Amino acid sequence: MSLQGRHILSIDQFSRSELEHFRSVAEKLSPVAKRKVRCTALAGAVLANLFFEASTRTRMSFHTAFARLGGEVVDTTGFTFSSISKGESLEDTARVIAGYADAIVMRHPEQGSVAKFASGINIPVINAGDGIGEHPSQALLDYLTISREFARLGKTIDGMTIAMVGDLKHGRTIHSLAKLLSRFENITFSFIAPENLRAPAELLQELNNAGHKVVEYSGIQEGLKNAAVIYATRIQRERIEGGETMEGYGENFRINRRALTNYAPQDAIVMHPLPRDSRPGAFDLSTDLDDLDNLAIFRQTDNGMLMRMAIFACVLGVDKNIEQTFQPINIYKPKKLSDKDASFYCFDC
Amino acid sequence: MSLQGRHILSIDQFSRSELEHFRSVAEKLSPVAKRKVRCTALAGAVLANLFFEASTRTRMSFHTAFARLGGEVVDTTGFTFSSISKGESLEDTARVIAGYADAIVMRHPEQGSVAKFASGINIPVINAGDGIGEHPSQALLDYLTISREFARLGKTIDGMTIAMVGDLKHGRTIHSLAKLLSRFENITFSFIAPENLRAPAELLQELNNAGHKVVEYSGIQEGLKNAAVIYATRIQRERIEGGETMEGYGENFRINRRALTNYAPQDAIVMHPLPRDSRPGAFDLSTDLDDLDNLAIFRQTDNGMLMRMAIFACVLGVDKNIEQTFQPINIYKPKKLSDKDASFYCFDC
Amino acid sequence: MSLQGRHILSIDQFSRSELEHFRSVAEKLSPVAKRKVRCTALAGAVLANLFFEASTRTRMSFHTAFARLGGEVVDTTGFTFSSISKGESLEDTARVIAGYADAIVMRHPEQGSVAKFASGINIPVINAGDGIGEHPSQALLDYLTISREFARLGKTIDGMTIAMVGDLKHGRTIHSLAKLLSRFENITFSFIAPENLRAPAELLQELNNAGHKVVEYSGIQEGLKNAAVIYATRIQRERIEGGETMEGYGENFRINRRALTNYAPQDAIVMHPLPRDSRPGAFDLSTDLDDLDNLAIFRQTDNGMLMRMAIFACVLGVDKNIEQTFQPINIYKPKKLSDKDASFYCFDC
Repeated sequence: MSLQGRHILSIDQFSRSELEHFRSVAEKLSPVAKRKVRCTALAGAVLANLFFEASTRTRMSFHTAFARLGGEVVDTTGFTFSSISKGESLEDTARVIAGYADAIVMRHPEQGSVAKFASGINIPVINAGDGIGEHPSQALLDYLTISREFARLGKTIDGMTIAMVGDLKHGRTIHSLAKLLSRFENITFSFIAPENLRAPAELLQELNNAGHKVVEYSGIQEGLKNAAVIYATRIQRERIEGGETMEGYGENFRINRRALTNYAPQDAIVMHPLPRDSRPGAFDLSTDLDDLDNLAIFRQTDNGMLMRMAIFACVLGVDKNIEQTFQPINIYKPKKLSDKDASFYCFDC
Repeated sequence: MSLQGRHILSIDQFSRSELEHFRSVAEKLSPVAKRKVRCTALAGAVLANLFFEASTRTRMSFHTAFARLGGEVVDTTGFTFSSISKGESLEDTARVIAGYADAIVMRHPEQGSVAKFASGINIPVINAGDGIGEHPSQALLDYLTISREFARLGKTIDGMTIAMVGDLKHGRTIHSLAKLLSRFENITFSFIAPENLRAPAELLQELNNAGHKVVEYSGIQEGLKNAAVIYATRIQRERIEGGETMEGYGENFRINRRALTNYAPQDAIVMHPLPRDSRPGAFDLSTDLDDLDNLAIFRQTDNGMLMRMAIFACVLGVDKNIEQTFQPINIYKPKKLSDKDASFYCFDC
Repeated sequence: MSLQGRHILSIDQFSRSELEHFRSVAEKLSPVAKRKVRCTALAGAVLANLFFEASTRTRMSFHTAFARLGGEVVDTTGFTFSSISKGESLEDTARVIAGYADAIVMRHPEQGSVAKFASGINIPVINAGDGIGEHPSQALLDYLTISREFARLGKTIDGMTIAMVGDLKHGRTIHSLAKLLSRFENITFSFIAPENLRAPAELLQELNNAGHKVVEYSGIQEGLKNAAVIYATRIQRERIEGGETMEGYGENFRINRRALTNYAPQDAIVMHPLPRDSRPGAFDLSTDLDDLDNLAIFRQTDNGMLMRMAIFACVLGVDKNIEQTFQPINIYKPKKLSDKDASFYCFDC
């Protein structure tokens, strides 16, 4: 299995065995993310971390992932390159940066722009989100999270039920994760969304065609039943007419402690792509879950850095025997990252 | 003495022996700051350097300090995180970043925000200034500077007189340094300020209670007498009604060559938190002192990087035997950083 | 030959043998730029990469150059330092940063500001462009490109003809490269420009005085004859009255496939400082050349990082025996950076 030199543009590119390879490299790198060892596999490599749209946490996640493998990162932020504003084509910009860096991460507000950027160059380009398009590393980290949680709980992805809740129409996270999971077998998708935010018909068709079961619900009361994973998303109300005052949203679509207790299996895990909106009246994933082991949202972001380490290792061809580049480290680390949640690096510490 | 894992939020946290520990670690790291050796103690560690308020020099000081210990830094600048603007709580943001980094430096315009950010997470958070609140690393670097200057001059902090001049009401630097010095013995504080910018009564009370002597002066003519240290501050005139045309300020509160010659001991050192306003009519610390050894302001900023190295070494637990991580270095360095001043790294070169 | 500790402010500073030293160090570093080895010569060194004016690609070029030698970089971007906005003098800012970093790269919109910044400090300062002033690293990379292309083609700089096309009045790139080439012997400069954008008389005089031949042309039909190098520049139309609709510009001054085929020697190389404006009606260097080996523009930017590596190595005194700091590297790299162009690192791969 070699993924070296590959662009990471869409989750559609990957077979099940490739997905499992990313996951297994991530597991190998886990001691690095846990600060038990440091890694020098990418010493001498340079990442161009290009954010044409603000996304501080995603930028930091890619940056720290590359740095933890021993590489050096140059960041850009802002709406555009100064050279693009002078009429330079995206193709020229791409070719110039390919001469500086060994890999490129790119986020851009325009769908398809990352693929266009990547099309003419041969160093690996990783799509960190292009508008309503793809965000493949998010789907990969969600998959890693489900896999690790299930390992803890003795469950398997094949045959599981996942409830996806909220805005299933616009959420690229939902679409990408559903497509990824369709590589596995016999999944039941419980889609729980308001009428005007239902998942696209093509997605349902695609999942059905791949042999999975899709059931749509108009509320969590029925939809959470049997869910091993509850994937909540924020209603991107700024994109929806009347979104600010969605009637009944709180009752039927909001995941909080009461909903979890009343409607879901006891060991269901709760995921969310973050950020969650904690302002009053936001109807997003509730903070009253924060002291429950079920809440996997911070393990999810922890896994984000870890999966991005795995992605870099794979596309830059250092995934094989990567343990040989591990070095001892002797820097202070806390037993747990916070007092509330069980962070990934303490599962076995 | 172990400071590992500690947040650095306020100067109030530290005992005299802890202050002296920071200083002694800084002295051990001096050959690194002087570019005589390089240090790999933090190889594999990642710092999140979060500036929610512009402060280029402070950001660079922390960044270079971490880098000189072998660590990797990810910077953010700008008024807010994109995720916070979407309603994410400071607590969620903190927990996410704790999963990426080994330590966090944070500057924020709102008093108390850094402590709030730090409260839920267990990796060390260093307050780089929160509004009119604290700026503990500044007080520590000022202390290091006084200590190093006094070593050169054969003086001791216990028993000394320090004149603090300017805006003693708003200057957090003044307040923090005074509190730090109150851990020592028998200090005389000469507070020299315009009537409406006098130091807060609580500060005077606190210093008195700790056994020190505080004398207030309405001008430098009397106030500089016996001062081993003259600590000048900029009047933050933008915060004061009528500040732009403060009557008599120049005569009575401005430190320049004439003032130093006429009113101060010959070997008094002059400090300032920088930046100093060199525009005409700014009434800030005069540039006519720039060729005098008394002027310690650039040794102060040099010591800033050094003390921040010591802070990182302490809170990340690599302060013990840190000399064992020193490596040879063979990069060009000038004999002096500038032709005017005696920079710290040339004291003994 | 030692260039250590030197500021790089203007191309005027350098003799022919110094130019050739930069070039030979760049050639030595070529395996690093080709990712065949990595280099640790600047391990422990810190660069302050100060951009007071947006220039993403130039900032990235310097950043990645320093990083590929093993050093650490702290970037700043934005119109000003927060401290300068508070009235700090450029001299104070320079001295403070000299205490943090081992070298400084600075770009600033104001002519002469970089020299002013550098004047009071003794760590090397590299001018990355100051308004209509100098941009010496651009001239050095252009020189490196000509030298490398000529090595491939069996030509020499002494005795060559170079055609410079476009806005010869404002282009600092043109001026700097012409001055650099004047250190060589017996060059013929073909200056091809619209009447109101002709090169300054002083430049012509200077080149003549140095023993070179200068011929001015009003169009490419005559001017490209015998040119071993065609150096095209963008008309900075935003600086010219009536620039948006320059009559006849397309016919007489634009380099495209037809012009190259009809008027130039078969093995002429085409250079451009980039970015090139690829928007319709931009009259800039045409993309219909992109599949020709003649087009050296991306090799030029590749050489930019390489020459900047050489500059850092020289001013920080690690240029001698630098091969001894090379380390093995085992990271994926493509055979070619793009499918179109022959990138520098594949000349001999």
